[in-house]
Amino acid sequence: MNKREFIKYSGLAMGAVVAGTSSVFASSGRQKEKKHAFKGSALKLSFIPFELKLRHAFTIASNSRTTTPVILTMIECDGVRGYGEASLPPYLVENQKSVSDFLSKLNLSQFNDPFLIEDILDYVEGVEPGNHAAKASVDIALNDLRGKMMGQPLYRIFGLNPDKTPDTSFTIGIDTPEVVRQKTMEADIYKVLKVKLGRGTDKEMIETIRSVTDKPLYVDVNQGWTDREQALDMIYWLKERGIVFIEQPMPKERKDDIGWLTQKSPLPVVADEALQGIEDLLPLKGFYSGINIKLMKCGGVSNALKMIRIARAMDMKILVGCMTETSCAVSAAAQLSPLVNWADLDGNLLIGNDVYEGLTVVDGKIVLPDRPGIGIVEKVKVF
Amino acid sequence: MNKREFIKYSGLAMGAVVAGTSSVFASSGRQKEKKHAFKGSALKLSFIPFELKLRHAFTIASNSRTTTPVILTMIECDGVRGYGEASLPPYLVENQKSVSDFLSKLNLSQFNDPFLIEDILDYVEGVEPGNHAAKASVDIALNDLRGKMMGQPLYRIFGLNPDKTPDTSFTIGIDTPEVVRQKTMEADIYKVLKVKLGRGTDKEMIETIRSVTDKPLYVDVNQGWTDREQALDMIYWLKERGIVFIEQPMPKERKDDIGWLTQKSPLPVVADEALQGIEDLLPLKGFYSGINIKLMKCGGVSNALKMIRIARAMDMKILVGCMTETSCAVSAAAQLSPLVNWADLDGNLLIGNDVYEGLTVVDGKIVLPDRPGIGIVEKVKVF
Repeated sequence: MNKREFIKYSGLAMGAVVAGTSSVFASSGRQKEKKHAFKGSALKLSFIPFELKLRHAFTIASNSRTTTPVILTMIECDGVRGYGEASLPPYLVENQKSVSDFLSKLNLSQFNDPFLIEDILDYVEGVEPGNHAAKASVDIALNDLRGKMMGQPLYRIFGLNPDKTPDTSFTIGIDTPEVVRQKTMEADIYKVLKVKLGRGTDKEMIETIRSVTDKPLYVDVNQGWTDREQALDMIYWLKERGIVFIEQPMPKERKDDIGWLTQKSPLPVVADEALQGIEDLLPLKGFYSGINIKLMKCGGVSNALKMIRIARAMDMKILVGCMTETSCAVSAAAQLSPLVNWADLDGNLLIGNDVYEGLTVVDGKIVLPDRPGIGIVEKVKVF
Repeated sequence: MNKREFIKYSGLAMGAVVAGTSSVFASSGRQKEKKHAFKGSALKLSFIPFELKLRHAFTIASNSRTTTPVILTMIECDGVRGYGEASLPPYLVENQKSVSDFLSKLNLSQFNDPFLIEDILDYVEGVEPGNHAAKASVDIALNDLRGKMMGQPLYRIFGLNPDKTPDTSFTIGIDTPEVVRQKTMEADIYKVLKVKLGRGTDKEMIETIRSVTDKPLYVDVNQGWTDREQALDMIYWLKERGIVFIEQPMPKERKDDIGWLTQKSPLPVVADEALQGIEDLLPLKGFYSGINIKLMKCGGVSNALKMIRIARAMDMKILVGCMTETSCAVSAAAQLSPLVNWADLDGNLLIGNDVYEGLTVVDGKIVLPDRPGIGIVEKVKVF
């Protein structure tokens, strides 16, 4: 960053210094010198495909895999770089081609003020419906960029206490008892585990884990149960074994059955597959008692914050989750975690080739980085 | 502000400068030197009662008056001052004594990080229920303070475009045709007027105004209509005369009648008295098509932003309104106005002894100040 830019940003932030004494403003006429909108260089969006390698094959109710494709994004303004990411697990509709196609259609160079995030996201939304992960990759990069340009971490811009992050769960996929036992022991530093169920080995999975640890467990069925009476019996069985909540117990289309289950369930029933973005939230009232917010589903940090505000008004519990993704998208989600009940932000821990360094987990608890924006730095050169 | 403080704030904001090149962080280990939480001086809350003098006696469906009592607040940290206000029109339950009593109970000196706004407001909320205007006076001062300490106007912290502010309406109270005609002509610079109805002279009021101007009108009945069939007839009559929406047509307790009216009304029906804070919002679905958000009702800027997010998800129209208040509270509300459909932010224009300078109105449109926080400066020394 050259000297002119240095002075420019100092000037932007210097308001903090002079604002303390309002007489400075009143007497100096300083406000006339300032401009309403920030005028930077035209925003420049870059993106590259990347393949995440999973440390272990990952199995849930619907599939098993060893890699996850992503698109890494970067938005640049005045030499400052904001980073974003679209994670594209194969069971979702988006893929590297669809994200590349969508991002290629965007003309962000029409904007030279990255602080107009509401306008820019409105524009992006209007280009084409869907493309939630692609939109998230733009939103995350923009939020990172504006945080860096303000010199503030996102949690501070949102007014949140970085010490109030929850523990994150670590996910145990469906596997043989030997592997499950091994993974559970390896997950020693985590204070809570999330267990994938729904492939007919539910009791075996839980009993295997309980043979190793008595820590609290979250259960994610990924729509795997089909009979509501059996589901309710299983939830009672799980409650006696220290399970905290049940995520997406039945197919999302079985709304009435899920509503019946939620009504009778002694544990919170959390929507995941049943929930994409903001527009899906209000109709869940009465059918679920909680929601799983993921940046890749809802389109990014900005929408996730809106959903948290709406879900709180609905008296819903909130889980913030993730896909397998780098420390980029996970650190972005973690910025909001002081506002949620539960966090399942282990996506970066499941991969072996993370290109960023961001949030850390200390004694099972999420620790937000002391850096502006989403708080990440490149471990290897990406852009 | 002395040199040590200057350097401290420069340091806080300097992240903006170095963040551009992530390698600076990665290679310098700079993040280890920084602290998660900002450590400033203990927050110091001051407040003083003040009496606003109205330019004209102001008459609505329920009462008439010439003054409005307020409490002006100030929260100080490290020599930076954030300003707030509680406006206390006599028809509401709060008054200068109740606000003073509530503010006296607060111990804000336990906080030394004004950026932890969510924590601080949770604490304030927990001290005692109700006291919405008192709480707003704390929230506004805190938001002003954190904006100043970041060197950023609130609209930028919220990601909003300051050029997208709406026109503000100017309110015409119930009065004789001569006075109404006079006031309408004096309101020449406003592109839209808000007309108070509900005292039996509705058609006379509208016809008087229409004899002077054909600009769009908002109508506020302040619960003054009692018969729903007559109300619907009146709304059709008003629609033909260029009215944009109808605010609180009937008593808030008459929820079913209002729902019936909203269903059949050719104009949006906006809740005002029926709506206090966030908790009242979801139950309005189906009964009103819009809401009037006022900082004094909902407890401040932070809650108002949450309500905007929730109301949008409900497909509600949004009006941001105010009480008679100084440029302090009005400028705070104006920071959110790029997000709303309509604004009625004329409270400061109705008083003759404003102590602050903040938002301005140019060609009828709200112009946000180019200053950090809520953007006000003292016109006369208050604290």
